Amino acid sequence: MKVILLSGGSGKRLWPLSNDTRSKQFLRLLASPSGEQESMVQRVVRQIVESQITDSITLATSNTQHDIITNQLGASIDLVTEPERHDTFPAIALAVNFLLNERQCDPQEVIVVMPCDVYTEAGYFKAAARMAEAAARDEADIVLMGIRPTSGTTEFGYIVPGQPQKGQLATPVQQFVEKPSRDRAAALLKEGAWWNAGVFAFKAAYLQNIVDHYVPSASFAQLRAQYGRLPRISFDYEVVEQAARLAFVSYSGQWKDIGTWDALAEELPTSTIGRVTLAGEVDNTHAINELDLPLLCVGTRDLVVAASPDGLLVAAKDAGEMIKDYVERMPARPMYEERRWGEYKVLNSVTFPDGHQILTKELRIAAGKGISYQKHLHRDEVWTFVDGEGLLVIDDKVTRVGRGTVVNIVKGQMHAVKALTPLTFIEVQSGDMLVEEDILRFPWDWDAAEAAL
Amino acid sequence: MKVILLSGGSGKRLWPLSNDTRSKQFLRLLASPSGEQESMVQRVVRQIVESQITDSITLATSNTQHDIITNQLGASIDLVTEPERHDTFPAIALAVNFLLNERQCDPQEVIVVMPCDVYTEAGYFKAAARMAEAAARDEADIVLMGIRPTSGTTEFGYIVPGQPQKGQLATPVQQFVEKPSRDRAAALLKEGAWWNAGVFAFKAAYLQNIVDHYVPSASFAQLRAQYGRLPRISFDYEVVEQAARLAFVSYSGQWKDIGTWDALAEELPTSTIGRVTLAGEVDNTHAINELDLPLLCVGTRDLVVAASPDGLLVAAKDAGEMIKDYVERMPARPMYEERRWGEYKVLNSVTFPDGHQILTKELRIAAGKGISYQKHLHRDEVWTFVDGEGLLVIDDKVTRVGRGTVVNIVKGQMHAVKALTPLTFIEVQSGDMLVEEDILRFPWDWDAAEAAL
Repeated sequence: MKVILLSGGSGKRLWPLSNDTRSKQFLRLLASPSGEQESMVQRVVRQIVESQITDSITLATSNTQHDIITNQLGASIDLVTEPERHDTFPAIALAVNFLLNERQCDPQEVIVVMPCDVYTEAGYFKAAARMAEAAARDEADIVLMGIRPTSGTTEFGYIVPGQPQKGQLATPVQQFVEKPSRDRAAALLKEGAWWNAGVFAFKAAYLQNIVDHYVPSASFAQLRAQYGRLPRISFDYEVVEQAARLAFVSYSGQWKDIGTWDALAEELPTSTIGRVTLAGEVDNTHAINELDLPLLCVGTRDLVVAASPDGLLVAAKDAGEMIKDYVERMPARPMYEERRWGEYKVLNSVTFPDGHQILTKELRIAAGKGISYQKHLHRDEVWTFVDGEGLLVIDDKVTRVGRGTVVNIVKGQMHAVKALTPLTFIEVQSGDMLVEEDILRFPWDWDAAEAAL
Repeated sequence: MKVILLSGGSGKRLWPLSNDTRSKQFLRLLASPSGEQESMVQRVVRQIVESQITDSITLATSNTQHDIITNQLGASIDLVTEPERHDTFPAIALAVNFLLNERQCDPQEVIVVMPCDVYTEAGYFKAAARMAEAAARDEADIVLMGIRPTSGTTEFGYIVPGQPQKGQLATPVQQFVEKPSRDRAAALLKEGAWWNAGVFAFKAAYLQNIVDHYVPSASFAQLRAQYGRLPRISFDYEVVEQAARLAFVSYSGQWKDIGTWDALAEELPTSTIGRVTLAGEVDNTHAINELDLPLLCVGTRDLVVAASPDGLLVAAKDAGEMIKDYVERMPARPMYEERRWGEYKVLNSVTFPDGHQILTKELRIAAGKGISYQKHLHRDEVWTFVDGEGLLVIDDKVTRVGRGTVVNIVKGQMHAVKALTPLTFIEVQSGDMLVEEDILRFPWDWDAAEAAL
């Protein structure tokens, strides 16, 4: 059995900690057995490893999440990135193709697909193993996981159970209803329906047949190149609703979507994280501060306070659902990002009356990592190195840099930097158009450059 | 009649907007007739001018407030700065000496001393004029202003009225009680006592006699040089309580100390200032954001939210009194300052494990102003000019600077800069000890330098 983890979402509901590149599943806020805080994706990978249900985890995600996933999970799991973000059917199709063609997975092998942003416990993974076993025994084309409902929400799919079959691990599904109306949901609850957890078990060949119907492909590269030809539709609509034989395994343990501040607050290890002081009679207040500034909460009640380089949130606990609508109108530039090479935060951004812009950043490059050889057409960059040791290339010339080095990289100059030890510098960008897209990349051979030094 | 305004206080109760150099009276938050926001000190000076009670205002303050006062009030009023901050008696003594010796004030001239951080209306200044007239007529040695009490607070002095004298403007004071106990205050209220407003009228010669008793001086410079020999005591204790003949003029109009967030919120022109979005059912929430980050308040009630480069505050309106105690334990470096030459804000401050520090600032120098010729022994500074035009001196060599100029000023190098147009640059300080005190100043003749260019 192979596990495919789906990592999606932009997580606007947990603004300002989450942004377009740091979705909610990457927030390192949850208590972990080691005592350090972990993110939801780190938690689910740890839980899968501990459950010993598989030795193969593939993470299906978009290009924008590549760097942060590598930072959080290392190189121990396979990453399959969508060329552009479509929906869950194409994303799963691509990952299954990867397993078949790049990892020589047996077409009869069972795949279990699960989300990476659900807060669960060990029984959840036991249920997944049972699903895989049922799929292996061919009890159904697709085996689902049913969650015991706690409300008549219209946000989930509902599974109406059929007659249990003797000797079978999974119960046949009589009917599957995706996101019903409120009245329909109430009726489904009375019929004993279960929520659909979005966990799916099936044989690799079963899905590959469906995919071949749209885009026949002999290799992973071929399918990835034609990714846009797969229908942009959810796995539920394209596969689950079309399956001739559906069954499900039920799970009644802890299962929650930590998608709102209220829900997240319940799982935080402490009521404050970061530089926070609670003063006076503070009640039911959670405060998370990722800024260097002190945060003081005095006499607050039923409140979530969150501060990050992206912004400041002060929200009544019962009002958190509304955040998303407002955040969608906020400016898009992320003020903090984890990158493959390290991390940066924006310190300052100014546009002068004549349209000239400056952007000041602190960049930290991890030892051994570097920023690719590149040039910009619309901006100068001044780099003041303040800690660590590294190598710098300007127009093919390599020099050593460290504390005290100052470089003025003007428009059109080629430049790259590599950290020998953790390297920190302050960057002042200055130009008429400061956008991520103003970047032209070129190859650079660090090994040859270092050998020539 | 001459007015002396007292400007003191560190304003920790309005943290994070106020700090050691930006006391509460300098916060530009109040509505003004012009539609622009004004500070308390700007408001009181405007009110004095409008009341036409005097053509002479002298502001008594400490050295640290010199720059911000000049920025807010211009050069239209006299500033008398204490060499070090002592108490109200020495501060007033110095200002009176300044008027006598530097402004050739007649010793029989009446002086009215008033605080600059009280929120009042026109009647207050009419009462001050009446006090001055009573002092001029010699109705008492010291004429006070009595405020109609609204509570039995133990924070103020109380004035017990004597028998009004026919034909006199002021009422004799039977007794003056400074900061009574709670029981005593309740009894004083029953006796018909008034609060002492901290406004005093007296003849210059009267105070000069008291001062001469401690430090006889023939000139302002002489007294200022011996400032430390004046007793560090309040004017109330040293002068008011010792006066043989005390009288007072009552004032029953608006009078409030805007010393807490709750009180300030009532006088704000709008419920939000700066980049703030209120979402959902927000009730009785005031939010002030001086940061460049968006602030989102969702469903909040009875709350003050304030964000500045110094920190973030989220406080229940009824709990604001507690802020001071906590803020006293906060780090002292101001993150934003108005200076004689312009303003700066701290963007970033990092201390590395080996003790090396960096501090990144954005500095804006007003046209025609400059930073004095100086050098540092413990830090390098990298200046990246991003807007405006100016002149730079490095080790006696003058160059023109503007957008795109980058300068690396290493330890021990002499440097000065002058703005020809409003000049903005990013400064990265780097060194083993980044403190304001690491500065050696030298004379520099800009006129000669410009002529030689």
